[in-house]
Amino acid sequence: MIPGPPSSIRIRYSEVDRMGLLYHVNYLEYFEVARSDWIRWLWKPYREIEDEGFALVVIEANIKFISPGKYDDLIEIVVSASEWGRSRLIFEYTMKRASDGRKLAEGKTAHCFIDKFGKPIAMPDKLRELLTGHPHINL
Amino acid sequence: MIPGPPSSIRIRYSEVDRMGLLYHVNYLEYFEVARSDWIRWLWKPYREIEDEGFALVVIEANIKFISPGKYDDLIEIVVSASEWGRSRLIFEYTMKRASDGRKLAEGKTAHCFIDKFGKPIAMPDKLRELLTGHPHINL
Amino acid sequence: MIPGPPSSIRIRYSEVDRMGLLYHVNYLEYFEVARSDWIRWLWKPYREIEDEGFALVVIEANIKFISPGKYDDLIEIVVSASEWGRSRLIFEYTMKRASDGRKLAEGKTAHCFIDKFGKPIAMPDKLRELLTGHPHINL
Amino acid sequence: MIPGPPSSIRIRYSEVDRMGLLYHVNYLEYFEVARSDWIRWLWKPYREIEDEGFALVVIEANIKFISPGKYDDLIEIVVSASEWGRSRLIFEYTMKRASDGRKLAEGKTAHCFIDKFGKPIAMPDKLRELLTGHPHINL
Repeated sequence: MIPGPPSSIRIRYSEVDRMGLLYHVNYLEYFEVARSDWIRWLWKPYREIEDEGFALVVIEANIKFISPGKYDDLIEIVVSASEWGRSRLIFEYTMKRASDGRKLAEGKTAHCFIDKFGKPIAMPDKLRELLTGHPHINL
Repeated sequence: MIPGPPSSIRIRYSEVDRMGLLYHVNYLEYFEVARSDWIRWLWKPYREIEDEGFALVVIEANIKFISPGKYDDLIEIVVSASEWGRSRLIFEYTMKRASDGRKLAEGKTAHCFIDKFGKPIAMPDKLRELLTGHPHINL
Repeated sequence: MIPGPPSSIRIRYSEVDRMGLLYHVNYLEYFEVARSDWIRWLWKPYREIEDEGFALVVIEANIKFISPGKYDDLIEIVVSASEWGRSRLIFEYTMKRASDGRKLAEGKTAHCFIDKFGKPIAMPDKLRELLTGHPHINL
Repeated sequence: MIPGPPSSIRIRYSEVDRMGLLYHVNYLEYFEVARSDWIRWLWKPYREIEDEGFALVVIEANIKFISPGKYDDLIEIVVSASEWGRSRLIFEYTMKRASDGRKLAEGKTAHCFIDKFGKPIAMPDKLRELLTGHPHINL
């Protein structure tokens, strides 16, 4: 597991439903925002990866909704890279409310590196090095 | 399994990412649109259920992304109620492109009925009857 | 004015706010969905326009919110091309609830044709012909 | 004009279109995020206002799109209260890219205070005091 520093997101008005709760679909978007932060933290902005002609596409996603987030809550998400293979990479997520530390959700997403034609390719060497050489690693 | 008639959704400009592909988070929103259609088809508009003080909240979601949808593609989603218990209900989803029948995604969501205080409650009797008495049922 | 046939959109659960009303930002997205329908109706799918290397970018938008749309309401939007110049095109919108015909919003968006480098270019000849030769035209 | 401190938003992957540019509808959502910051800064969290049974609904919005924001750009938005009446309040917005100060958009939104039945009501006294007594005021 290689956890990054927590990402903070304040729940927007547009993101809650008619019960005033974070709409369930947006948890997955929050995971993505946090994952981008993680990639920037460990390696470089995801924008640069795509500009070089690669993409890290999502092939599976799992979310467990534990307790609802409310409008204007400040949320903290910790992302960890938990497993990887030749072209695959798996992330795990824990989402909490900052004010009381209550866990709101957990999740897992599986990804694959592809080239600009959509073909799966090996993970860039630099990223593999950063993952393998990371001091926090304990898969 | 109690499959409903397919729901049709055309992929909006706002819903694709910079690769021109349906942004992964929106698959989960499409599942919800199709689930609402299913509930309307089997029983009544979900709006009425919430207006009576109940809600069917999502407690877990799983999505397998198989092939990407593109901007302006017409999508068909078949939803089936696949399992249920006292207050729980599980739906499964198959999402295809209408033009060539290509499967784009599969998914599963688990739900729980709650009252207006957020407490889990038994599924409304009428829905249980409709589920149990449905001719297509083969769990 | 060249009005197209009304576009129908059912308000999604994700699109309402904590008051159960269509979130104001989504009116602008609905205008876009209806505008795409209009372009498809008068000319061809907007997807093809972009695939040929052009884009019709928004340079100004104005929305008047008259009465709120509610979750699950069926909405009808009529789009009209109301003015155009060398590279500019202006659309006007009227949005009603289908069930009672109540007007929910009016709007206006101004657009400019650009090439793939972002430079303004003249409107494609074919579109100009369709606009100018249209029987409903009364600017 | 009563400008607040700039609000910062990083453009999310989900918020750009197939050209990699901030989707036009999201400018209006960014205005709202910045307006919430402004209300929190001058007065108190908007959440509390709604919890007390009031709402500040949008009745008109105008956006001028000047230069496109790109995925991962850090954006700064300055909101100013520019005019107000008995129940109305007008905000103006300037949106810039943080890295080069380039202006991306300008906008204006008009709002009205309503009670829980949707009736226009007078602006809360406390807010009127804060607006009128503010040292930066020069309408």
